[in-house]
Amino acid sequence: MRKTTNHLADGRSIFYFDLDASAPRVKADQRNLADVTAAQGSMRYDLLTGDWVAIAGHRQQRIFHPNIDQCPLCPTNADRESEIPESDYSVVVFENRFPSFSQASSGSSITQTPSWGSEQVATGRCEVITYSPLHDVSLAQLNQAEMGLVISAWIDRSAELSQLTDVNYVFIFENRGAEVGVTLHHPHGQIYAYPFIPTYVEKLLSQAKEYRNLHQRSMLDDVVAKELLADERIIFQDNSWVAFVPHAARWPYEIQLHPLRNITSLTELNEREFESLAGFLPRLIKSLDNLFDSPLPYMAGWVQAPSNSPEAVVDSRLFFRLVSVQRSEAKLKYLAGSESLMGAWISDVLPEDAAGHIRTEFQKLAVS
Amino acid sequence: MRKTTNHLADGRSIFYFDLDASAPRVKADQRNLADVTAAQGSMRYDLLTGDWVAIAGHRQQRIFHPNIDQCPLCPTNADRESEIPESDYSVVVFENRFPSFSQASSGSSITQTPSWGSEQVATGRCEVITYSPLHDVSLAQLNQAEMGLVISAWIDRSAELSQLTDVNYVFIFENRGAEVGVTLHHPHGQIYAYPFIPTYVEKLLSQAKEYRNLHQRSMLDDVVAKELLADERIIFQDNSWVAFVPHAARWPYEIQLHPLRNITSLTELNEREFESLAGFLPRLIKSLDNLFDSPLPYMAGWVQAPSNSPEAVVDSRLFFRLVSVQRSEAKLKYLAGSESLMGAWISDVLPEDAAGHIRTEFQKLAVS
Repeated sequence: MRKTTNHLADGRSIFYFDLDASAPRVKADQRNLADVTAAQGSMRYDLLTGDWVAIAGHRQQRIFHPNIDQCPLCPTNADRESEIPESDYSVVVFENRFPSFSQASSGSSITQTPSWGSEQVATGRCEVITYSPLHDVSLAQLNQAEMGLVISAWIDRSAELSQLTDVNYVFIFENRGAEVGVTLHHPHGQIYAYPFIPTYVEKLLSQAKEYRNLHQRSMLDDVVAKELLADERIIFQDNSWVAFVPHAARWPYEIQLHPLRNITSLTELNEREFESLAGFLPRLIKSLDNLFDSPLPYMAGWVQAPSNSPEAVVDSRLFFRLVSVQRSEAKLKYLAGSESLMGAWISDVLPEDAAGHIRTEFQKLAVS
Repeated sequence: MRKTTNHLADGRSIFYFDLDASAPRVKADQRNLADVTAAQGSMRYDLLTGDWVAIAGHRQQRIFHPNIDQCPLCPTNADRESEIPESDYSVVVFENRFPSFSQASSGSSITQTPSWGSEQVATGRCEVITYSPLHDVSLAQLNQAEMGLVISAWIDRSAELSQLTDVNYVFIFENRGAEVGVTLHHPHGQIYAYPFIPTYVEKLLSQAKEYRNLHQRSMLDDVVAKELLADERIIFQDNSWVAFVPHAARWPYEIQLHPLRNITSLTELNEREFESLAGFLPRLIKSLDNLFDSPLPYMAGWVQAPSNSPEAVVDSRLFFRLVSVQRSEAKLKYLAGSESLMGAWISDVLPEDAAGHIRTEFQKLAVS
């Protein structure tokens, strides 16, 4: 795998990831782009919940609503200047032009004793990753080598972004489908390098710490072992990974994918884990796409150990989550008052039923 | 105010609230309804987050998708047998026919030491409240007396449901608009009596307790005082109440409404607070409806002290929250990966701007 670094017209970084080390990656960005790095977002502390909320008021001026023939993630050609100057590529990562968290402010460290009214510049970094030069595919259509290149890019960005000052958590994720607000159809994901540990992970670590104090064991180790033992919600298992619908799933379709080995970050994947993941992840996504008439809208991402928080590593364990709001052919799950205001979830789908549906579709897709 | 109790054909309770004590409230439910109370939901413990998730698999069989001329919340007439047997009413509360939490299982107390795999019957109670016999109005169209009757019903249900065994939290709320999944247009809200303290409130209480330990003061008292002092996001204020957009608002439109006095439950409202609320709440909703071309979709509800948790009262304080996913005339806020998977919110709207928009509309609606 070769990584080539370049810069876009406004100074943002772009990284090409290639299997073919001879591919030329030297084209300059010919666009006339105004420097937008000055437009900084802020974040405010919500004392009632203990969360930081990013207020990206500057993003309201986004003018980036491309026509279908002006996809900013397709390669540049004679008719179209996209975010990617090259006329072809394999996998590309570049800095988001309208980031919610931005490096420009690096150095203004987050306050350790926030209170009501605390407001800070939203440090960090937001990147976009495109999975393929082809506009109409998705992760489901990638072969093992192509998927492997995406994973290599994930690993590279995890390693690099977690080294940045003020970055406390690197989140690699994908939103897919108009149902979750995605306007760019081109297959892509995102990477947020947050300047704080997000609420979900903070809660997870606190639960794991309490569990460790009580049982002298890793909570996530035990959860994986218990799901394997229960064997009621398993979708897929091999020598390296297990995918299941969790016992207390709250979304209509919800998958957790865990390595069998306790590792805390994508950077620790060994070759067997890497190759296995590259092989079955596209198949898993395809099985989800076969549940209904159209591809499943989803949100998915990697849970990893926080950066610059060595004390959190002992309770961290790498896993992948994928959730969907689709609950039947024509129905979506809406997060209404109970979920949105109280955090009390009501699910209409039995986790064992959801697991059965996905497993059936997964098994139909025999490795050819 | 007169309250009349009756029962529906399948045994569910129905309560009529009337200003006119002579209104006849004796009609029997003539429908032939199968007993559905046997269909019990369950709830499962999510060890990773510490939340209970209700799994209402039995609700998938809901057949209740009425035609517009078969609204189940309109009064019964010669052509239509609704959930309300009377041919007229003012405000009505009745038990939900397909409840996520149900009384039938009362007595099976929630475990105090849940672990992975814990599953319990979902005890509690779910009720529906209809604000008006008129199909096409909303809270915004109620006069002070009508709104007062709704508040009286809220107080009655808060008092009664909080006395139930195994009920730890009474949540009075409303989902409004197709954008949040509401299929019944008739103006109505809901009441959930949870067998646990919901995540949001648990976090709020934990933050308040930490604040009290640090400052020997009430967190919510101080937040109200600081918002009043800042005076940048206030929408409305009188001798009893203040409404503002919170400093760290995460939804595009988000309002908190606090009594100026520290009280912990709707049952403690004094006459002045009651009359003031009955007068301005419809006006506040109407000002939201005037922000855009069509009525604002919203989720709203009361934060109160937990039931049967005397130790939580010291850190509780009554307030009302209203949030909306609408961020401009044509755009909705989608909760994507950062919000849904990580709990890290990104807002595109400056809270001071949102407050200004609402305040402008509110002030246009001078009390006539």
